Amino acid sequence: MPIRSADEYIESLRGRKLRIYLFGELVKEPVDHPIIRPSINAVADTYRLAEENPELATAPSKLTGQRVNRFLQVTESVDDVVMQNRMQRRLGQRTGTCFQRCVGMDAINSMYSVTYDIDQAHGTQYHARFVEFVQHMQRENFVVGGAMTDPKGDRSRAPHEQADPDMFLRIVERRPNGVVIRGAKMHQTGCINSHWLLVMPTMRLGEADQDYAVCAAVPVDHPGITYIYGRQSCDTRALEAGDIDTGNATFGGQEAMIVFEDVFVPTSHIFMNGEWQHAASLVERFTAYHRRSYVCKTGLGDVIIGAAATIADYNGVSKASHVRDKLVEMTHLNETIYGAGIAASHESKPTSAGNYQCDDMLANVCKHNVTRFPYELSRLAQDLAGGLMVTLPSDQDFQNPATKPILEKYLKGRPGVSVDNRRRVLRLIENMTLGRNAVGYLTESMHGAGSPQAQRVQIARLANFEEKKALAKKLAGVDESENEK
Amino acid sequence: MPIRSADEYIESLRGRKLRIYLFGELVKEPVDHPIIRPSINAVADTYRLAEENPELATAPSKLTGQRVNRFLQVTESVDDVVMQNRMQRRLGQRTGTCFQRCVGMDAINSMYSVTYDIDQAHGTQYHARFVEFVQHMQRENFVVGGAMTDPKGDRSRAPHEQADPDMFLRIVERRPNGVVIRGAKMHQTGCINSHWLLVMPTMRLGEADQDYAVCAAVPVDHPGITYIYGRQSCDTRALEAGDIDTGNATFGGQEAMIVFEDVFVPTSHIFMNGEWQHAASLVERFTAYHRRSYVCKTGLGDVIIGAAATIADYNGVSKASHVRDKLVEMTHLNETIYGAGIAASHESKPTSAGNYQCDDMLANVCKHNVTRFPYELSRLAQDLAGGLMVTLPSDQDFQNPATKPILEKYLKGRPGVSVDNRRRVLRLIENMTLGRNAVGYLTESMHGAGSPQAQRVQIARLANFEEKKALAKKLAGVDESENEK
Amino acid sequence: MPIRSADEYIESLRGRKLRIYLFGELVKEPVDHPIIRPSINAVADTYRLAEENPELATAPSKLTGQRVNRFLQVTESVDDVVMQNRMQRRLGQRTGTCFQRCVGMDAINSMYSVTYDIDQAHGTQYHARFVEFVQHMQRENFVVGGAMTDPKGDRSRAPHEQADPDMFLRIVERRPNGVVIRGAKMHQTGCINSHWLLVMPTMRLGEADQDYAVCAAVPVDHPGITYIYGRQSCDTRALEAGDIDTGNATFGGQEAMIVFEDVFVPTSHIFMNGEWQHAASLVERFTAYHRRSYVCKTGLGDVIIGAAATIADYNGVSKASHVRDKLVEMTHLNETIYGAGIAASHESKPTSAGNYQCDDMLANVCKHNVTRFPYELSRLAQDLAGGLMVTLPSDQDFQNPATKPILEKYLKGRPGVSVDNRRRVLRLIENMTLGRNAVGYLTESMHGAGSPQAQRVQIARLANFEEKKALAKKLAGVDESENEK
Amino acid sequence: MPIRSADEYIESLRGRKLRIYLFGELVKEPVDHPIIRPSINAVADTYRLAEENPELATAPSKLTGQRVNRFLQVTESVDDVVMQNRMQRRLGQRTGTCFQRCVGMDAINSMYSVTYDIDQAHGTQYHARFVEFVQHMQRENFVVGGAMTDPKGDRSRAPHEQADPDMFLRIVERRPNGVVIRGAKMHQTGCINSHWLLVMPTMRLGEADQDYAVCAAVPVDHPGITYIYGRQSCDTRALEAGDIDTGNATFGGQEAMIVFEDVFVPTSHIFMNGEWQHAASLVERFTAYHRRSYVCKTGLGDVIIGAAATIADYNGVSKASHVRDKLVEMTHLNETIYGAGIAASHESKPTSAGNYQCDDMLANVCKHNVTRFPYELSRLAQDLAGGLMVTLPSDQDFQNPATKPILEKYLKGRPGVSVDNRRRVLRLIENMTLGRNAVGYLTESMHGAGSPQAQRVQIARLANFEEKKALAKKLAGVDESENEK
Repeated sequence: MPIRSADEYIESLRGRKLRIYLFGELVKEPVDHPIIRPSINAVADTYRLAEENPELATAPSKLTGQRVNRFLQVTESVDDVVMQNRMQRRLGQRTGTCFQRCVGMDAINSMYSVTYDIDQAHGTQYHARFVEFVQHMQRENFVVGGAMTDPKGDRSRAPHEQADPDMFLRIVERRPNGVVIRGAKMHQTGCINSHWLLVMPTMRLGEADQDYAVCAAVPVDHPGITYIYGRQSCDTRALEAGDIDTGNATFGGQEAMIVFEDVFVPTSHIFMNGEWQHAASLVERFTAYHRRSYVCKTGLGDVIIGAAATIADYNGVSKASHVRDKLVEMTHLNETIYGAGIAASHESKPTSAGNYQCDDMLANVCKHNVTRFPYELSRLAQDLAGGLMVTLPSDQDFQNPATKPILEKYLKGRPGVSVDNRRRVLRLIENMTLGRNAVGYLTESMHGAGSPQAQRVQIARLANFEEKKALAKKLAGVDESENEK
Repeated sequence: MPIRSADEYIESLRGRKLRIYLFGELVKEPVDHPIIRPSINAVADTYRLAEENPELATAPSKLTGQRVNRFLQVTESVDDVVMQNRMQRRLGQRTGTCFQRCVGMDAINSMYSVTYDIDQAHGTQYHARFVEFVQHMQRENFVVGGAMTDPKGDRSRAPHEQADPDMFLRIVERRPNGVVIRGAKMHQTGCINSHWLLVMPTMRLGEADQDYAVCAAVPVDHPGITYIYGRQSCDTRALEAGDIDTGNATFGGQEAMIVFEDVFVPTSHIFMNGEWQHAASLVERFTAYHRRSYVCKTGLGDVIIGAAATIADYNGVSKASHVRDKLVEMTHLNETIYGAGIAASHESKPTSAGNYQCDDMLANVCKHNVTRFPYELSRLAQDLAGGLMVTLPSDQDFQNPATKPILEKYLKGRPGVSVDNRRRVLRLIENMTLGRNAVGYLTESMHGAGSPQAQRVQIARLANFEEKKALAKKLAGVDESENEK
Repeated sequence: MPIRSADEYIESLRGRKLRIYLFGELVKEPVDHPIIRPSINAVADTYRLAEENPELATAPSKLTGQRVNRFLQVTESVDDVVMQNRMQRRLGQRTGTCFQRCVGMDAINSMYSVTYDIDQAHGTQYHARFVEFVQHMQRENFVVGGAMTDPKGDRSRAPHEQADPDMFLRIVERRPNGVVIRGAKMHQTGCINSHWLLVMPTMRLGEADQDYAVCAAVPVDHPGITYIYGRQSCDTRALEAGDIDTGNATFGGQEAMIVFEDVFVPTSHIFMNGEWQHAASLVERFTAYHRRSYVCKTGLGDVIIGAAATIADYNGVSKASHVRDKLVEMTHLNETIYGAGIAASHESKPTSAGNYQCDDMLANVCKHNVTRFPYELSRLAQDLAGGLMVTLPSDQDFQNPATKPILEKYLKGRPGVSVDNRRRVLRLIENMTLGRNAVGYLTESMHGAGSPQAQRVQIARLANFEEKKALAKKLAGVDESENEK
Repeated sequence: MPIRSADEYIESLRGRKLRIYLFGELVKEPVDHPIIRPSINAVADTYRLAEENPELATAPSKLTGQRVNRFLQVTESVDDVVMQNRMQRRLGQRTGTCFQRCVGMDAINSMYSVTYDIDQAHGTQYHARFVEFVQHMQRENFVVGGAMTDPKGDRSRAPHEQADPDMFLRIVERRPNGVVIRGAKMHQTGCINSHWLLVMPTMRLGEADQDYAVCAAVPVDHPGITYIYGRQSCDTRALEAGDIDTGNATFGGQEAMIVFEDVFVPTSHIFMNGEWQHAASLVERFTAYHRRSYVCKTGLGDVIIGAAATIADYNGVSKASHVRDKLVEMTHLNETIYGAGIAASHESKPTSAGNYQCDDMLANVCKHNVTRFPYELSRLAQDLAGGLMVTLPSDQDFQNPATKPILEKYLKGRPGVSVDNRRRVLRLIENMTLGRNAVGYLTESMHGAGSPQAQRVQIARLANFEEKKALAKKLAGVDESENEK
């Protein structure tokens, strides 16, 4: 029976016996772990939004003939690509964190067209298999995670040149009914909160890297997999009593390392097996989608703008012209990100396989702005928050009868604002600029879907400088035949 | 007979006996004036593009049932709005300057919906009249200029409060068959190169400003009109022999002051007459369109990027990593402008009148970036150009037999590049960053369609800070009922 | 007997029976508290530097005729002011955090001249008293903390207008032999690690605010004082086993709230008592010194540049041109801060009292850059660090035999770099950009010594726009007599 | 007899029979040429300031035992270096342009120490000769120009590798009593307005480049020299009637190309002759001085801030908060440049020769900010100016009785401001951001004393990344011995 609600989703994660390490211990039940739970809540909100606003968070699927969660849809129109961005912004607004499902959505859509192309070039059958897999996911309403980033070892060497051949995930054995894979994937967003993982190569491969050219679907609870949880700034505040000091008690992100120790994948779940020539186009299509998916950060931007506006209000300075001006600047930067992202989606074109691929240049431009502007929004939010954001005593001191009245007396700001509400907003800004969700709002904005330099390389490739030079030469009256002389 | 080509357009401007002052003299025939002609060439290119690429630069018109120049079309779909941007970028690439027709296009589209709304509110007949006017323009294939910006006098006073009531254009007399208007419009782009002008109010009006609430169409060659030409940086280089030192010998922009000395407008050409309540929405819709029209500057951006890439190549440093990186940065900024602009167009919505209105926030964000990024592109282009751009001797020195061999000897750069080509590219960069087209690429980017602060005011209005505050408060767990205490 | 070493300083703090609350509990002995100790170590390093490099960290004192710790010196030459900056940068380099003694140093130097001025104006005896106090401090080699920032309550009201009169610290009783003060001071850097506190008003006062015009010295262990410790991002990592995850295990900052509950101050320790006219100049001189003292952040900048260079090296990409370029940009920004700060010191002028006061404009410019550039350095450091900085598992997972070999295998980077060293550097960057020392490097850089807007107000005051207008008018040939017409 | 006044200086330039080409013609008398004269006026102002404020613009000289113009002084103390910066800012404020004498001043001071070092290393006699030359200049109170920048040809080749060996100035013949030099120097600031030129190599040389290692003094009116004048944006406005449209009618900059056609230099005026090993240190010391000399641009910054403040005032918006804020930002950026520059001077150290050399890192940081901030000041000035700056009719139209009353009527702004004064200020801003002095304020700020990348290379050299890495490793607890494993 498919998952029909946020609550059912959470239940679906229980009792899976995953091998997860966190703080040196095996996690018994992630659903009940106070550090992990907020990340599950964030994914659950993608189900909740589908319940509350199906227009936004579900979409028709030709594959099953039914409406499915939008994160599982193979796009059927330009508008479908655009609607992904709208949904992403909304979920960013609702959770103030990374809701972890974009990798899977973007992986489904890029693999859909790449499997088609491989079949065309090599006479293989990957596309039909992949469609079947997606149908399965849609019918069960599962969460699909992507798994792309390899450890990479010595970055100056190709996969097959590494001292340890496992530094990129690879096929270690080919059997009649499937393959055995080994390796690790780093920084995997939301992997533990998924049901299935789509394993993909992380970069352009050469002929000698054939064993690294593998795409496959693996169930999250496969016994050959180990998860090691990444720690985040201020993560242990979730273990403290009280819900204020976490800043955002309900929602958080998740990144973990996934280790595949000789995991067998049956043929039905293999979507690339040695076709190294197609690794580059898979990475390029995926990153194009995914760089534009960072529009989600404008949803977080809306939250941080709102938090900054609220604290200015609570501090009694909301009408000061410089405060107003900073809020406008934050909004301008946030919408600039949105503009490039939504434009990339609007400018989508159909692939040979029939789904829709966003514009590569604008997607890169969107992401490149994401590596800059959230830092400036964060700086401006700290400006408006005031120093109290980092000198506020702990919640326990506000509970302690010895200090509570002192704190209540001296931290009183504008009349009509409770001290508790004031610190709640301060802690939210701390959460997004230094704390747990700063990981997603800042550092992940920097490195997710490729670090800044990766976008610059791609922008250089797409810039078509020769065409631009021709424009300039024509207007300048350059006569190139003169140069021959 | 309608104008059918760029050449016919130029001919249509001859012999109109306009009263134009430039450098203290009456201009005999603007078409033959070496300073004015480049601006005419730029408008002519909008006709040429329509000939060469009708898909891009013409569009179907329900009003006439025929394809018309896209600058004259009332948009009939979202795609029509998007195509305006594509055409604008292309024309920017072709001319490297302001081609002057966007004001008219944006005026037609905003007046189309506003006249409809006035009729709905006041039972007037403006819309039908306006449709007739547009049909006339489309049939003749005329250039329509807009005329919006009043001198404004003392900026702290409303129109009716000014010491001199003419500081905003106004109705000085109402007759049975029309009205008489008086006043001036400043910085009017391409006015002399147009056939008709659409006069509009420049800002929100109050009840006491009724006489200032006037929209009307006036022929450019009306005898009651005087034009005083604005001078530009390096304008007189067009009077010198040789075509190199101008940087862009073919194309230029045009701005002039238009003085209406008691010009009679017959009823058939009046589209607002006292309905002061609608001045604000006209201005808002026009500026929304027009701020997104600044996507044209990305076409100029393509030229300046191309020029910078070419000079780096001519200087033999095109492979230096810092040079490459600067070209990428220029491209990134240029595409960031494009992203917000094209997104604003893609996000258009139908008006009550049936045409399509772009997204206001994204349009403002686009224009606000235009007030910043072209300056940075310009700075980077100067960086790549090298100091020679501003120390190069005049073209006459390159013609003088006494200095020509010396200059040819010492200004030789990389083998295979002629000194003349090198200086042509340098002069183009000078043209766009200091010279005649810097007026359009920089200062007009700053002030056209509203100065930066105008966008900030509008962004503040559209930002919906209350909604953003609610998002933040929800995530922070703020309990507003506590505040009441 | 005076304190003669870092170790003696630490011992001097023991057994003082301060009332300090942290995490809802009374702290037994701050010296032994794992969260507090790093902040004590940072102050101790000011003693250690004086031992190791007396030229840099001690200075001659006319007051005692002996060399004293530079933080206690009343400056006797321009060079003394300059040397403060050199020492501050060095201590920033050594500790990577806020070493907490600048407030006291800057308070001593501003109060030295202001007490002199008050005496001149009012015939009082504050200056001699203050000199005696400083001599005492110098002889004992004590740490002097400053206490300036009041809670401020409703920011639209003056001290005497507040609903609760205690929102600014004030004199509640005047006795023959002294005064009784009540109130609180917020965000007090290093207060618990000091021996004495200099209490000062926080802003310009009016005549009705006389009771708020109080300067006084109070021993840190006065029984009427309560300290409530401010919590910092990632503070509890100091409670975990292992020294890696803290990032900087040895050094940290400290800010606490100080509550004065009717504290009696004897006449000998009162340096302003009702002379409200001088509050403004005290604040102005103190902030001028203190805004330039933020040169300390260039020492932290050196550390973060070094950390970024190290991780690039460990990742095997230190020769990539974009990596190199980012390190250069970080250096350029860091030195830009230093330039303005050290210039402010070099441009010092003698006061009437005979000590030296730095240049106000350049001090404000220095601090204003500090509210911007450390954020950009931090962003660039995160860029160079890579995503692993925020997805690295906890140290416990590296100790756990079940996960240790997996982590050692897959987190191996360039040959010759241990995984432990790699994560140590990553954790240091996390510490400075998201963690405990991000409080000092970022948020305190924003708000310490006045928030950005405070600098802008002061820059506006000092800009002398009228003089600049005169320069422009002269060159433009403006004839103001024409304006009269 | 020495030159004793600005007027005498101007007279000293008359009748020198220089061979100068401008606009394809030989210039008869540069002093009377309307395009050249403003640049002469700017140099003359260095004499005038020496008359009006000898404390600032003259200095004692041990070489002659008398006070000399500061531009001719060999610095004798740190304060002398600092005073150069103060004088430079003041002259920038007075002229609003490049006053052209810094190259000579910086050349004198760097050659002073380098000739000393060559003598030490090679037993030559350059230093004494150079001292004699400087004494001569001081006694006659002459203007000394520098001549450094060679054409460079193919930038990927060393001087001796060029297809044409003259692409760098070189010794073509050595005679018993001197040498013969041939080549050209590009972009030479103020060369025609000088009396003597100091010729220097432009970069680090190798052993095979010995003939290019030449320093020499040559009189400006040597018959073997040809000057080709560089044209500037809007240069010909100086030929028009009226003094308004030039923006700054009195002062301008000058750059020309100097061609040496086999010029004989007697031994007494040769200061380097083949000692290629010292070319690098000469360039490094000169650029260190000269990059800090760009503090002059803060004087121009004062003018442009003043112009922006004036036009805001004339437009009646000087109290708008965003206007105020932009003026503060301009001031902040301008003073940031000043801070690094004056700090570089304050941190000067004595050379072996006994004069004072500024700090290299801060000098580079100063100049690097100069390649950025004037562009932002310029952008902000254009923002405050409004679009009228580039659409204002020519002065002739304001003189024409047909248009004068119309223009006077409609260009009236705030009461009490004449239209003429308004356009004077607008034209000054145009002059500095697009026109003739934009060459000096913008493009020369970019490329003078080395392009941005030259500073970045030098900053990288001086950054001492290894030391910074050691700081970070120590705090992070890195154990490098672990890496060995």
